[in-house]
Amino acid sequence: MKHGGDLLSYKEYYEGDLIDFSSNINPLGYPQGLEEEMNLGFESLKAYPDIQYRKLKESVAEYLGCTKDNIVLGNGSVELIDNFIFLAKRVILCTPSFSEYELRAAVHGKELVRIPYNEDFTLKTMAIENHLEEGDMLILGNPNNPTGLRIKKEELLNIYSMVNSAEAFLLLDEAFFEFCPRDYDSIELFKSFDYDRVSILRASTKFFALAGIRLGYGCASKSMASMIAQIQLPWSINSLAEIAGRFIFKDKNYIEKSKTYIEIERKYLLEELSKVKGIQVFHSHTNFILIKLYAWKEEEAFLFFLRRGIVVRKCSSFVGLEENYIRIAVKDRESNERLLGVFRKLEKEKDFEEINPL
Amino acid sequence: MKHGGDLLSYKEYYEGDLIDFSSNINPLGYPQGLEEEMNLGFESLKAYPDIQYRKLKESVAEYLGCTKDNIVLGNGSVELIDNFIFLAKRVILCTPSFSEYELRAAVHGKELVRIPYNEDFTLKTMAIENHLEEGDMLILGNPNNPTGLRIKKEELLNIYSMVNSAEAFLLLDEAFFEFCPRDYDSIELFKSFDYDRVSILRASTKFFALAGIRLGYGCASKSMASMIAQIQLPWSINSLAEIAGRFIFKDKNYIEKSKTYIEIERKYLLEELSKVKGIQVFHSHTNFILIKLYAWKEEEAFLFFLRRGIVVRKCSSFVGLEENYIRIAVKDRESNERLLGVFRKLEKEKDFEEINPL
Repeated sequence: MKHGGDLLSYKEYYEGDLIDFSSNINPLGYPQGLEEEMNLGFESLKAYPDIQYRKLKESVAEYLGCTKDNIVLGNGSVELIDNFIFLAKRVILCTPSFSEYELRAAVHGKELVRIPYNEDFTLKTMAIENHLEEGDMLILGNPNNPTGLRIKKEELLNIYSMVNSAEAFLLLDEAFFEFCPRDYDSIELFKSFDYDRVSILRASTKFFALAGIRLGYGCASKSMASMIAQIQLPWSINSLAEIAGRFIFKDKNYIEKSKTYIEIERKYLLEELSKVKGIQVFHSHTNFILIKLYAWKEEEAFLFFLRRGIVVRKCSSFVGLEENYIRIAVKDRESNERLLGVFRKLEKEKDFEEINPL
Repeated sequence: MKHGGDLLSYKEYYEGDLIDFSSNINPLGYPQGLEEEMNLGFESLKAYPDIQYRKLKESVAEYLGCTKDNIVLGNGSVELIDNFIFLAKRVILCTPSFSEYELRAAVHGKELVRIPYNEDFTLKTMAIENHLEEGDMLILGNPNNPTGLRIKKEELLNIYSMVNSAEAFLLLDEAFFEFCPRDYDSIELFKSFDYDRVSILRASTKFFALAGIRLGYGCASKSMASMIAQIQLPWSINSLAEIAGRFIFKDKNYIEKSKTYIEIERKYLLEELSKVKGIQVFHSHTNFILIKLYAWKEEEAFLFFLRRGIVVRKCSSFVGLEENYIRIAVKDRESNERLLGVFRKLEKEKDFEEINPL
């Protein structure tokens, strides 16, 4: 299980529809009106997408608050991650983090430096500074997957300054940005630096609930954006993703509603989960929560949930996590309550006087 | 102009809709019913596509006539071309051919060997044999773009045997396969060899008129298919392409109708173009025709057509072609007649007693 969301592999375990807590998609779905918009655009499938994505770049630039010459686009943000890694001398990452950073570095034969997070999943800033060399690509999830924490503004500026001194590059993977508290916006934060040595990736996948459409985007310096364009495959964003990307950002109402909805459900889940014995719930700024299991292996818990119609994310495939972590998504209230119900059943399986170390 | 189909770049030159003869798409459009099928599948956009593409592979395997373990899938066939080149030691190609072979080899820093086609655009088989080394990836367009010729069955078997002796690999780019005469099917031809050292790429882009959906596929040995899967980005085929790929191949009626339609129009265009003075028309087995201009540079002809509402493909971006070649698509009769009309106007611009060397 390299990734969440692979429900097809588990359908034999449960009669009925599985609830997917293993991939972190906005439970409100994509913005209303998108289906009609795509219907109107079906004719465009006969032609290639604009090879320069002029209109799509304008739309993304307006949404992100940068110019269209700063925009990078990908077949999902994972294609952009691959492109940035391809351009790096070495890849520096913090563990645990999104497994594709490692995998793409391996595919491209890049030297990899792994710096573990602290036990509370904050960054080991000193260790990062000690390792940074010229040409390195430091990749940080912000918020990080699967740990769920966002980097504080001051810390991020500090890291950026270290990256600059080392003549390295910083890649912020912000695929979950919109789910987070409105403390700062890194695209605004680095605007005055013209994104020199810093690139920020976002995506329609999670927040806009468009995992299937494959539309990743980001903001980089003009020279970096132009380098990425040079190595990218032509037409890598499909015509319907192009249509989606010119439509979804306009729905400010949907964006606000989703942010508020997730904030409420995250708080609710964090609070309720904290009452469950036998697990440690890590704080989260976003729409997923990492959980350490004291009384079960991930596989036991996974099967326990699966047999009750819920797919959670086992986490041992993340370098740096043992076989006793799971990750769950923040979903709609009904699903969240069903998840909590199963956690309470799981709790009853064990006698916590003896084994809970908390 | 690295590729055809970039109409947006030229719209200022002509008031009204441009007719695109620069990209080679089935003029009958995509199979009927596809829009309804996609409408039913919109919900699937919220989830990731099946990361293993189980059902899509079954559908493609049935259409191609191989097993699903032989199937490779890509975000357009250009992603697969990139993947195969990535795995090669060196890349051997024949010039002129699809520019992405060169470009992707350059991106991946692969040594490149260019073997020019003969003057009539048949293969220099001896030269290929002399150059082939262990681990080489010989890429042949079949039919080749922009030259339009298909390799004869006996010659292909001969080349395959050379590739085998050299312990090299053969990649047949058959993106235009269905437009060609039914002389042989290379997927059938190499079945008894289990596709050992030979891979065949096809695509929905041209024949199924789905350039915008990005669905390439092909047939390779099981071990090659598994290597490709290992280096590929996850979820690179979007959910709507997945839906299309489970629908379009069933429409045998559309497939037959399209083949016949293109055959008739190709013959018509070849015959009518052969009467135009000042140009040399190369024979074609597929839905595009390469034309050598004796009396004009490509840019002159390009602008002449553009000002009359037609976009043709300039060909000097193909390594091996000078600045006096254009490529045109085989389209519907009405468009084809409009194209021929402009050729006749172009012809009148010059006095052919003096300059036509034919």
